[in-house]
Amino acid sequence: MRRLRLGMVGGGDGAFIGAVHRIAARLDDRYELVAGALSSDPERARASAAKLHIAPDRAYADWAAMAKAEAGRLDAVAIVTPNHVHHGPAKAFLAAGINVICDKPLCLTLDQALDLQQAAAASPALFALTHNYTGYPLVRQARAAVADGLIGAVRVVQVEYPQDWLTTRLEETGQKQAAWRTDPARAGGAGSVGDIGTHAFNLAEFVTGLRCESLAADLTRFAPGRALDDNAHMLLRFAGGGRGMLWSSQVAPGNENGLRLRVYGDKGGLEWLQEEPNTLIFSPFGKPPQRITRGGHGALPVAAHATRIPSGHPEGYLEGFAQLYRDLAEQITARIDKREPDQAALLVPGIEDGLRGMRFITAAVASSERDSAWTKIE
Amino acid sequence: MRRLRLGMVGGGDGAFIGAVHRIAARLDDRYELVAGALSSDPERARASAAKLHIAPDRAYADWAAMAKAEAGRLDAVAIVTPNHVHHGPAKAFLAAGINVICDKPLCLTLDQALDLQQAAAASPALFALTHNYTGYPLVRQARAAVADGLIGAVRVVQVEYPQDWLTTRLEETGQKQAAWRTDPARAGGAGSVGDIGTHAFNLAEFVTGLRCESLAADLTRFAPGRALDDNAHMLLRFAGGGRGMLWSSQVAPGNENGLRLRVYGDKGGLEWLQEEPNTLIFSPFGKPPQRITRGGHGALPVAAHATRIPSGHPEGYLEGFAQLYRDLAEQITARIDKREPDQAALLVPGIEDGLRGMRFITAAVASSERDSAWTKIE
Amino acid sequence: MRRLRLGMVGGGDGAFIGAVHRIAARLDDRYELVAGALSSDPERARASAAKLHIAPDRAYADWAAMAKAEAGRLDAVAIVTPNHVHHGPAKAFLAAGINVICDKPLCLTLDQALDLQQAAAASPALFALTHNYTGYPLVRQARAAVADGLIGAVRVVQVEYPQDWLTTRLEETGQKQAAWRTDPARAGGAGSVGDIGTHAFNLAEFVTGLRCESLAADLTRFAPGRALDDNAHMLLRFAGGGRGMLWSSQVAPGNENGLRLRVYGDKGGLEWLQEEPNTLIFSPFGKPPQRITRGGHGALPVAAHATRIPSGHPEGYLEGFAQLYRDLAEQITARIDKREPDQAALLVPGIEDGLRGMRFITAAVASSERDSAWTKIE
Amino acid sequence: MRRLRLGMVGGGDGAFIGAVHRIAARLDDRYELVAGALSSDPERARASAAKLHIAPDRAYADWAAMAKAEAGRLDAVAIVTPNHVHHGPAKAFLAAGINVICDKPLCLTLDQALDLQQAAAASPALFALTHNYTGYPLVRQARAAVADGLIGAVRVVQVEYPQDWLTTRLEETGQKQAAWRTDPARAGGAGSVGDIGTHAFNLAEFVTGLRCESLAADLTRFAPGRALDDNAHMLLRFAGGGRGMLWSSQVAPGNENGLRLRVYGDKGGLEWLQEEPNTLIFSPFGKPPQRITRGGHGALPVAAHATRIPSGHPEGYLEGFAQLYRDLAEQITARIDKREPDQAALLVPGIEDGLRGMRFITAAVASSERDSAWTKIE
Repeated sequence: MRRLRLGMVGGGDGAFIGAVHRIAARLDDRYELVAGALSSDPERARASAAKLHIAPDRAYADWAAMAKAEAGRLDAVAIVTPNHVHHGPAKAFLAAGINVICDKPLCLTLDQALDLQQAAAASPALFALTHNYTGYPLVRQARAAVADGLIGAVRVVQVEYPQDWLTTRLEETGQKQAAWRTDPARAGGAGSVGDIGTHAFNLAEFVTGLRCESLAADLTRFAPGRALDDNAHMLLRFAGGGRGMLWSSQVAPGNENGLRLRVYGDKGGLEWLQEEPNTLIFSPFGKPPQRITRGGHGALPVAAHATRIPSGHPEGYLEGFAQLYRDLAEQITARIDKREPDQAALLVPGIEDGLRGMRFITAAVASSERDSAWTKIE
Repeated sequence: MRRLRLGMVGGGDGAFIGAVHRIAARLDDRYELVAGALSSDPERARASAAKLHIAPDRAYADWAAMAKAEAGRLDAVAIVTPNHVHHGPAKAFLAAGINVICDKPLCLTLDQALDLQQAAAASPALFALTHNYTGYPLVRQARAAVADGLIGAVRVVQVEYPQDWLTTRLEETGQKQAAWRTDPARAGGAGSVGDIGTHAFNLAEFVTGLRCESLAADLTRFAPGRALDDNAHMLLRFAGGGRGMLWSSQVAPGNENGLRLRVYGDKGGLEWLQEEPNTLIFSPFGKPPQRITRGGHGALPVAAHATRIPSGHPEGYLEGFAQLYRDLAEQITARIDKREPDQAALLVPGIEDGLRGMRFITAAVASSERDSAWTKIE
Repeated sequence: MRRLRLGMVGGGDGAFIGAVHRIAARLDDRYELVAGALSSDPERARASAAKLHIAPDRAYADWAAMAKAEAGRLDAVAIVTPNHVHHGPAKAFLAAGINVICDKPLCLTLDQALDLQQAAAASPALFALTHNYTGYPLVRQARAAVADGLIGAVRVVQVEYPQDWLTTRLEETGQKQAAWRTDPARAGGAGSVGDIGTHAFNLAEFVTGLRCESLAADLTRFAPGRALDDNAHMLLRFAGGGRGMLWSSQVAPGNENGLRLRVYGDKGGLEWLQEEPNTLIFSPFGKPPQRITRGGHGALPVAAHATRIPSGHPEGYLEGFAQLYRDLAEQITARIDKREPDQAALLVPGIEDGLRGMRFITAAVASSERDSAWTKIE
Repeated sequence: MRRLRLGMVGGGDGAFIGAVHRIAARLDDRYELVAGALSSDPERARASAAKLHIAPDRAYADWAAMAKAEAGRLDAVAIVTPNHVHHGPAKAFLAAGINVICDKPLCLTLDQALDLQQAAAASPALFALTHNYTGYPLVRQARAAVADGLIGAVRVVQVEYPQDWLTTRLEETGQKQAAWRTDPARAGGAGSVGDIGTHAFNLAEFVTGLRCESLAADLTRFAPGRALDDNAHMLLRFAGGGRGMLWSSQVAPGNENGLRLRVYGDKGGLEWLQEEPNTLIFSPFGKPPQRITRGGHGALPVAAHATRIPSGHPEGYLEGFAQLYRDLAEQITARIDKREPDQAALLVPGIEDGLRGMRFITAAVASSERDSAWTKIE
C-alpha cells in the first residue's frame, strides 16, 4: 500500500490538534510526514520538525514559502492552525496543486469561505475538512440507515454539543486553547457556535442527508466579560419539513464532549452519543429498541468499512494496546540511552505475568478435573 | 524521539492480532517495522512483507533464521502467532538478545513457561506480554487507587469476561480464529480459560496488587462436541484474605467483550467495564458514587500518563479521526493511480461542508442579533 | 391518622388516570373513597361506583348534583375527567367548600383558568393540581439543591418530554386516550404542549425556582390530518438571565415517557430522567459527577420526606403521585385540627400553577402562529 | 370487588417491612386491615393498632391468642416479624384455618421448615411467602421467555445480590435492622445468604424454571467480629446441565440492592437488574440486543398482567410487592366463590419455595464448612 507524502502547517510543540492529526495519519500507515511549517517562529519550527523526523531542509517557518517549495513533492498537507490561519495556507496549497486537509471551521468569515470555494474549484487538488465525528463507524451506519429508509421520512432532529471547560474565565489564566477560542480576532464572530456548534450542525446534515434551511438562534455570553458566545440555543427547519433543535455550550458543568444526535422519522428513531460511540440505538416504531454495536449484529457494510477491530472492543482498544508499546519503547530507549526510564512506563506485563497466566490455566483445569476442588496457584 | 527497529513473527495477510500490534506500534511513532517472519509459507511471507514496506532481504519464512540474522539489527520483536508458536520464537529472540513483545497467553504448558522464565532471566533483553487491557488509562487509575488505599483493604473481587461468538460450533465453518482457539494442539489445555480467562485473571491481580493463592473451578464444554471449555466458573482466594469469583464464557449471547472488574474494600469500591473503558465508578463508602473519566476531574497522574487526548473524547476518537485520513488516502491514491476510488471512502467532508459551516455560523450570529428571528442558511 | 372522605369525578370503568389517582390516594392510607360521579352515563356511573365500594346513594351521574348533595360530607374531590370537564366541576366543588384535586392541565382556555382562579380565591377550599412528577423524591432534591446554591446561579435549562405513542394516527383507531387528547374540543388548543409540555414546563420552574419569562416556539403537526401539535420546540428565557430549551413530542419513536431535566449553573449541574427516577446526577464544577440516589448518600431531608422505602429499591410513578395526596392530606388535616401543617408538605401545586400552565400554552400557540416570535408569558 | 379481612403479626411502630406489606396490601384495594398483634409489648401493640384504625378489641400482644380469637374472622394474616418469629405464628394461624402471608426466609431452621410444611399440608389454608421480586412484570416476562424457548436450553445462570449497608459493624450502633439480621438467634445460621442470597436463589429458579441441584460455596465474615456471613460466593449446577454462579454481599460499597440476573441459553440471553426493573435486555443470538420495557413493545401478556400503568412510567418495588397480594387475593376469593382462579394469579411463592430456601441455606453453610465441597440441595 502506497504511503502518501504529507506536510503540516501548524502543530508545533504544545499544540493539541496537530498531534491528533499526526496520530490519525499514522494509524493506517497510509501517510508519511515529510515536511512542515509547524510554527511561525523559526526556532520553534525547526526544533518541532526535528522531533518529528522531518528533514531540516523541509522544515519551514513560513507556510507560503513551504507551499511554493513543496509543489510536486507532497501528496497532501494538513492545516492545523487556529481559525484565522486557515484561509491563507489553504489557498496557497490549493494553488500549488497539493491536496488539502483543513481543520474546521473552514475560516473566519463567509467571504473567506466563498473565496476558498472558488480556489478549490480552480485547483486540481482535493479539499478535505476534518469534521472528524463523521468518521465514527456508527455515525456512518446512522447515515446509511436514514438513507435506506429505516426510520422513514425525517421529522425531528435533536442535536447538542455540551462541554463545561469554559464555565469560568479559563482564558484569563493563560490557557492557550481557551485564549484563542474566545478571541474574536482568532476564532471569528462566534464562540461555542464556531468551535462545536459547527460539529453538531455538520453531524445533523451528514446523518439526515437533509439541508437545514433556516434557523432561529439565541446566543449568550454567560461568563462575565467574555467576548464571544459560550452557549447557544437554536430552532432548526430542514428541507422537506423536518424540524430540529441545536444546543452548543461550553458552560454546562458535568459535560465533557457530549455531542449527541437523535433523529426521528415516521417509521423509527436513531440515537447516538459521542462519549459512547460504539453503540447506536435504533428504535423501529412499534418494536423494541435495538442496540447496534460497531461491527456487531445489525451493523451495515458502511460501518464495517470504518472499523479495524472486532465488535465489543471499543475503538479505544487500540490506544490501550498502543500504551504497552509506548511504555516498552520508553524502557528500551532508556536502556539504549543508559538512563532511568520514566517510572510511569514500568507497568508493562512481563514474563512473570505470563507465568502467572500459565499457572492460572493449569490450576483451573486441574481444579475442574478434581470436581472443583480448591487448587493452589503455585 | 528515537524510532525503534521492530520485527514481527506471525501477522501475515488475514491475521487479526498482528494488524492490531502494528497499529499499536505505530500510534505513538516510537517503532518502525523493518523485518518479519509473517508466515511460515515463504510466498505468503514475502507478499505480506512487501505490503508492509519491509525490505525483501528482511522478509523471512522461518523465525529461527530471522532471529539469527537480525541479532543486533532489531530493537524489538513482536510475536503474534497462535499460542503453540510462542515458546520457540520467544526463546530464540531472547537468545539473540532482542527485546520480545509476546501475545498472551505465554505458551502452551507450564513447563514451557518455566523454560521461558529461565531464558528471560539469562538474556539481557526485556520480555513484555501484551495483556493489553492493562494499558487503559482507567485500569491504571484503578490500580493506583487501590495502592493509594482509596478503597481500603480489599475484600471482594468480581471479575468476568463473557463473549458469545462461540455459542455455536463456529470452528466447524472454517473460521480461522475459532478453529485454532478450540483446538488443544494449538491453544493448549484450556479454551475460554486460556483465551480470555487469563485476561480476567491478570486484570484482577494487576488492579488489586494481590496474588491470587488458590481457586476452585468448574469448566464446561457447552457446544456439543467441542474439545475445550467454552465456559468457566471459579471461586478465588487472595493473599490477605480477599475472596473473589471469575467467570469466562464464549457462549453468553449478547456479550461481545464484556470484561468487567469490580473490587470492594472496607472503605470503598471500584467498577470498570472494558466496553465503556472511559469511565471508572468509584464509590467511597458512605458517600455518593463518583464517575471518574479518563483525564477528567479526579483522574490520577498515572491515568494521564496513558492518555493522548482530552477527557470526554473517548479513546476511539483517534480512530474516527484516522478514518478521514484513510478515506482521503484512498481518494488521493486513486487519483495517482488513475482509477476509481472505493465508494465507501467518499464520505470525507470537503469545501462545501466548510462553506455550510460558515453559513451556519453567520446565520446563527445574525439570528441572535435580530432577537432570534428565523434566518435563512443560504 | 385520620382518613379523609374522598369523592371522584370521572374515572369510571376503563379510564386510565382515575385508577392511578385511586391507587395514589390509597397508598398512604389517608383517604377513603366514599362518593363519585364516575361517569355521565347513569348506568355506568352506578356500576363503576359499586365496584369501588361506594354506597349507591352516593353514586351520581351528574357532578353538579354531587357537589350540592355532598357539601359537608366530603373532605376532598378528585377531578379526573378529560380537560374539557375540569372547569365546571372544579368551580362547583369549590363553591360547595370542598377541597379540589384536579388533573392537569387546569382547563381548556385562559378565560376558564382565570374564572377558576377567582372561584378558588372566593372559596375556603384548597385546590391542588396533580403535576405528579414533582412528587418524586429526587425532583424535590433537585429543587432543594438549586435553592441551597449547590449549582450557583442558574444559566442553562434543558427540559424535554418525548413520547412516541402518536407517531401514527392512533386516534383513528378508536383508542380513547388518543381520541380526546388530539381533539381540540376536549383537549383545548394544544396537543403535545398541553398534554406533556405543561409537565416539562412545570418541572423546569419547580426545580429552578425561577419564572420563565418568555419563549419562542415552533409547533408542528407531523401526523397527516392531525388537528393539534404533536411536536413542539421552544427557546426559553428565565428571570435573572437564564436561558433554556423545551421539547415536547408524541412522535419520537423509541421514547415512552422520556421527561428529562438538565439544569446548569455557574457552580455545577444537575440531570434527572423520569424513566430512571431513582438517580440524580450532580456535577459540581471541577469535581467528578456524583450519582445521588433516593435515600442514598448525599440525599437531602426533602428527598427523605418523600420516600417510603430504603435506597436501592426503585420507587415508582405511583409513589410520586401519592406524595401529592399525602401532602394535601396533611394540609387538610392541619386545617381541620387548626394547627400549622408540616412545612415539607406545602409543595403541592395549586391554582397559580394551573394558571401558569394556561399562560404557557397560550403563549406557545401565539408564538408559533406568529412564526415563533418572542412572546411573553404574562 | 370483595375486600379481604387482613390481620398482621409484627409491623408495629418503627418496623420497616410491615409498612411495606401494608402499602402492598392496600395498593389494589383488595384487603382491609382489621386485626393485629403488632408488637409483643402490650402498650406498643395497642398504640400501633390504634394508628392503623384497628378496633381496640382486635389489637393483641400475643399472636397465639390472636390466632384463636380471630379464627373465622380473618381472611388472611401477614407475618412480618424477624425470622425467629415466623414459625410459631405461621403454625398457629394455619391451625386456625387462616391463610398465611409470611415474610422470607421461611423460618430459622430446616426442622422448623419441615414442621411448617406438615402444618400447611394439614390446614385448609393457603400459605404465601413474599419473595417479592417475582412480582415485577419483567421478571415474569423473563420466566415466560425462558419457558417459551426464546433463549433455548439454559446453559449459564449468573445471579448476584450485592449491598453495602453492613460494610462496617452497623449492628454495634443499635440499628435494629442490622442488629437482628446479624444475630444468629434471630436470623438463623446465615447472614447475607439468608437475608438476600435466598432472594437471588429464588429468582434464578423462578426465571429458569430449573431446579438448582448442587452448589459449591465460600462464605466469609469480613467485618471483624461479625457472627454471620456478610459475603458469599457460590458455584451452582442445575438440572439438565446448566451451570451458574451466585454472589450475595452486604459489604460491597456502592451497591444498594443490586439484585441482578443473567441467563444464557443456546439461542439467546436475558439480563435484568432490580434497580432498573422496567427494562429487560433480550439478546437473540446473532441479532442485536433488544430493550424490552414493562408494557412496551415485545412485552408478553404475563408482564401486562402485573402492570397497572403504561410503559415508560417506572413501576416500583411496591407494585411488585402488591402483585403477590393481588394474586393471592384472587386465589382466596376464588376459593370463597368456589370457582377456578385466574391462571395468571397462580405464581405466588408458597410453602415449597420456603422449604427450598431453607434447604439452600443449609447446603450453603454445610458446603462452606467443608471447605466448599460440592453439597447437594436435597
